[in-house]
Amino acid sequence: MDIRTIQDPSFLKSLSVQQLESLSQNIRQFLIETCAVTGGHIGANLGVVELTIALHKHYNSPKDKIIWDVGHQSYTHKILTGRANQFDTLRQYKGLCGFPKLKESEHDVWEAGHSSTSLSAAMGMAKARDILGQNNQIVPVIGDGALTGGMALEALNNIGHDRTNMTIILNDNEMSIAPNVGAMHNMLGRIRMNQGYNKLKGDAETVLSRLPGGSRIRESADRIKDSLKYLVVDGVFFEELGIRYIGPVDGHNFEELENALKTADLINKPVVIHVVTKKGKGYHPAENDKIGTWHGLGPYKLDTGEQIKGQPKGVAWSQLMSDEVLSYARNDKRVVAITPAMPVGSKLTKFQAELPEQFFDVGIAEQHAVTMAAGLAIEGMKPYVAIYSTFLQRAYDQVLHDVDRQNLNVIFGIDRAGLVGADGETHQGIYDIGFLTQFPNMIVMMPKDENEAKDMVYTAMHYERGPIAIRYPRGNGLGVEIAPQRQQLPIGRWERLSNGEDVALVAYGPTVATIQQVAKSLTEQGINATVINARYLKPMDDLMLHELGASEIPIVTVEENMLNGGLGAQIGNFITDNNYHNKIKRLGIDDIYIEHGDVEHILADIGLDAASIEQTVKQHLQ
Amino acid sequence: MDIRTIQDPSFLKSLSVQQLESLSQNIRQFLIETCAVTGGHIGANLGVVELTIALHKHYNSPKDKIIWDVGHQSYTHKILTGRANQFDTLRQYKGLCGFPKLKESEHDVWEAGHSSTSLSAAMGMAKARDILGQNNQIVPVIGDGALTGGMALEALNNIGHDRTNMTIILNDNEMSIAPNVGAMHNMLGRIRMNQGYNKLKGDAETVLSRLPGGSRIRESADRIKDSLKYLVVDGVFFEELGIRYIGPVDGHNFEELENALKTADLINKPVVIHVVTKKGKGYHPAENDKIGTWHGLGPYKLDTGEQIKGQPKGVAWSQLMSDEVLSYARNDKRVVAITPAMPVGSKLTKFQAELPEQFFDVGIAEQHAVTMAAGLAIEGMKPYVAIYSTFLQRAYDQVLHDVDRQNLNVIFGIDRAGLVGADGETHQGIYDIGFLTQFPNMIVMMPKDENEAKDMVYTAMHYERGPIAIRYPRGNGLGVEIAPQRQQLPIGRWERLSNGEDVALVAYGPTVATIQQVAKSLTEQGINATVINARYLKPMDDLMLHELGASEIPIVTVEENMLNGGLGAQIGNFITDNNYHNKIKRLGIDDIYIEHGDVEHILADIGLDAASIEQTVKQHLQ
Repeated sequence: MDIRTIQDPSFLKSLSVQQLESLSQNIRQFLIETCAVTGGHIGANLGVVELTIALHKHYNSPKDKIIWDVGHQSYTHKILTGRANQFDTLRQYKGLCGFPKLKESEHDVWEAGHSSTSLSAAMGMAKARDILGQNNQIVPVIGDGALTGGMALEALNNIGHDRTNMTIILNDNEMSIAPNVGAMHNMLGRIRMNQGYNKLKGDAETVLSRLPGGSRIRESADRIKDSLKYLVVDGVFFEELGIRYIGPVDGHNFEELENALKTADLINKPVVIHVVTKKGKGYHPAENDKIGTWHGLGPYKLDTGEQIKGQPKGVAWSQLMSDEVLSYARNDKRVVAITPAMPVGSKLTKFQAELPEQFFDVGIAEQHAVTMAAGLAIEGMKPYVAIYSTFLQRAYDQVLHDVDRQNLNVIFGIDRAGLVGADGETHQGIYDIGFLTQFPNMIVMMPKDENEAKDMVYTAMHYERGPIAIRYPRGNGLGVEIAPQRQQLPIGRWERLSNGEDVALVAYGPTVATIQQVAKSLTEQGINATVINARYLKPMDDLMLHELGASEIPIVTVEENMLNGGLGAQIGNFITDNNYHNKIKRLGIDDIYIEHGDVEHILADIGLDAASIEQTVKQHLQ
Repeated sequence: MDIRTIQDPSFLKSLSVQQLESLSQNIRQFLIETCAVTGGHIGANLGVVELTIALHKHYNSPKDKIIWDVGHQSYTHKILTGRANQFDTLRQYKGLCGFPKLKESEHDVWEAGHSSTSLSAAMGMAKARDILGQNNQIVPVIGDGALTGGMALEALNNIGHDRTNMTIILNDNEMSIAPNVGAMHNMLGRIRMNQGYNKLKGDAETVLSRLPGGSRIRESADRIKDSLKYLVVDGVFFEELGIRYIGPVDGHNFEELENALKTADLINKPVVIHVVTKKGKGYHPAENDKIGTWHGLGPYKLDTGEQIKGQPKGVAWSQLMSDEVLSYARNDKRVVAITPAMPVGSKLTKFQAELPEQFFDVGIAEQHAVTMAAGLAIEGMKPYVAIYSTFLQRAYDQVLHDVDRQNLNVIFGIDRAGLVGADGETHQGIYDIGFLTQFPNMIVMMPKDENEAKDMVYTAMHYERGPIAIRYPRGNGLGVEIAPQRQQLPIGRWERLSNGEDVALVAYGPTVATIQQVAKSLTEQGINATVINARYLKPMDDLMLHELGASEIPIVTVEENMLNGGLGAQIGNFITDNNYHNKIKRLGIDDIYIEHGDVEHILADIGLDAASIEQTVKQHLQ
């Protein structure tokens, strides 16, 4: 069949296993070919083709709620719910979202992007169903990686206690984003290895029934028999939490999947079905990925899987930062690196290979990552927490309560700061300045180029008076020449890049290059701009701000960040607090969510590209 | 002995069991008497007297690190480390902190206040020890309630996998703050009930060894024997995570405790010792507490335990809010209440008793609480999440990513907003405005009095366009007369309480009463103030702000909140964004941590009492 003609999943009900398998092949081929052009989370999606089909055949979506944890594995779901013909726009500007999206389809009943939310959402939906007297099924689909996020464990604890009726699909592909770590992963591994174990039940019962009755030994035997649940149930971890365990089930076998789902239907309590899938299934380059390169990626060559890269100007920011930290760690064992499941994304695999004792991948566990860093720091270590800005949100309180309040020497490498592009609104790194600058002890910086990034790491390594954060964007650096010497950047001192009397342009990070470009263009029109690299978001440069204030020069601030809580807001407050009268224009993100799409388009849309900035500056000076 | 003479815990080493028991009695009596005057977390502390003594006898603090989770149970620890003579200042202004405090003692190796941080801290400290080649012991002490916080579970997953050497003391008092809920609690309960279970080990091995060798049955028997860990180990949940389990141990029996600690010493891997204690042990009013009233409280009468209350002006804010929500829930089953382990603190016990089906205590699990609310809301329910401001920090990302981004109708009742007094710096509710007002869809309000609080609940119940937060302070209302009719408060409209041409005073919440008082005093001095009740923190009243801006009246904002991110900051930005020229003075908390102590003293210290505000206003007008 042509999968582009699919309208909704109802056609699955009448398909034979053979037809389902044929459909799987079609969808798999479609995904491989489409993502070769658009990029995307191909690995995770290839792993759940059969599982998704089986769920949509068994359940009645959208009445029954299929909740995709993280959501990057929902491509087959999108195809089965009538969106195959939009896949050429996947993750592109105004195109199909890479995650479930309420407004795209009634079958998208829950949006995600961040991990480990599905079980809590499911609990809420299930209680709504029960209170309102409805009878639909609730089916969260969660990976083994996402299950180790604290929030998912909180939910399990609550669901098991409440005995909330739902069917949890545990999609165990032995890998979350990077290879999974953690004790729960080991436990699931043991279950997969010990499938013969289940056969013990019959044998054990035979043994015990042959013992003579009436004796003390017989009594013990009976008690042992009562305890056989621990022998016959692999998922004792779940059973201990009050959740029935079914599995493991081959996630690529329709009959096994259907049998498990039917069994779950008979149980009016929480059930977990442990489904074993293979990430990248059916496409060799992705199947053979052992470290997570095929998690989320750009376009690739169909035959070899080789990734098609553009011509980046410089090295990836993540690589630059991680390598720089590694260079200190080699000579100082106090320097350790921590990542919550992002060794590949944060480009820490080299660090991990070279200094495994000083490296910690703690799994999808941002809260633990940050407070573990606090524990390391309080004992004199120099931990570097590499974490995406959007995921640092998961550890807001840990940064405040454990690190900043105790004023500990933790270095945060805040990756993907600013707009992130294709991942879209769930992943924008535009809130961290707002919250970090409210924490009394925190230092926050952002480098305008590679040299400054290296100097910031140097500065952070020599700073021993509390927490310090270096935020850096997604993508690649500017490609500037690297200076041979490193220097400390005095805390709270900005850099004046040019002097002009007509207007002061203030930015930080790579946006500095944009305002330099604007300034150049303005000069050609007879407008002379002061250009300021506000490399410290906190503390701000009060000396320079007093100069600006005293001069009454008009100020324009530009940032890829929420306006509320951004640098411009704080500069504005400084000016009024000190009773200066500069005319101030703040450019940034004005209280809206920014969807997926290439950053260039988006910046133009929200008035943050060079042309728009230039126009705004000229209006501001009128 | 006179416990006020204790300098450090070294004297414990030579004490006999009898002497330890006598010491316990002394300490217990001291705690009961002291807390009767000062108030405090008496229940939790009475439960761990013997445990704390046993730990300090067995380990060598501060070389060995005893890490108190939450930290409100550290009173005996404080006594044993030389602070008994400061207990008359407990939790008071500039007095002894109710939680561990680095600056108080070298034996306080980790600060807490919020729950569930100890295991992550312990992991960090243990890795520091291992990397630096030291050999001290790491001993986190965590309650069964705190163990269900997601962060603690993330840590367990990591610790079990890493096999990090530490001894985790699981202090199981069957109650965290309120009675515990959740599947893990049930599991621990089963263990406590089944102590005979352990005896099976010997019996079972006897049975199996008597079977004939060589047969298929014999083979099965051997495999069963391998699996006996599931029979003999009660703590299979922990063992599945790679953590050795010892227990349950009577937490009031020194010999049992010492034996368990010695056993743990022999194991160079993570061990959990399951210690069963009785909250409130030795003081009948606290022992008999079944709902958590004796968790943290003020002074009480020594003989009866009756709490000594002052003469509050009005009803407790928490009670007012919870009762108001209950009144809607009675007539609308879509209205449900969620609390993360705070049914008593948030005064929801009446709601819980009356409408148990519409009430959810999810345990110490703020992340889950918020996203569960999102799941309820997306299915058409009207969830009310009652949560302390300081604990909402634990769910920053859930509020942003799950509720606000999906624009769901969740009502947040943000309790303990502003300064909290005796609990001190870990519990101040002074960050929520900073982060909530950065979320695009969020509405944030704070009532100036009881009538406005009721009107805000009314408004929230009728608002169906996204999330809405009502923040309210700790303590009691003003005692105003309650109007018979409720009214909706138009979204984003402030209230002008008086008109004066000399200065505009802007505040929100009960601080409005303070600025009214200031305005009155100013009038007597010939200064006429406009007084504005900025009851909406977001959105702000742009009409009124334009009026203020156009009039160029000097503005003074006053708030019990961080200045950065507060209302004053946003008003300042509005003024400069719109090119107005009002002189602005912002009063609030200027980038510092505020310690424990009565709020009145603290407000005077930071210039937020009426007298200081008045002086500031006058200076501002010069």
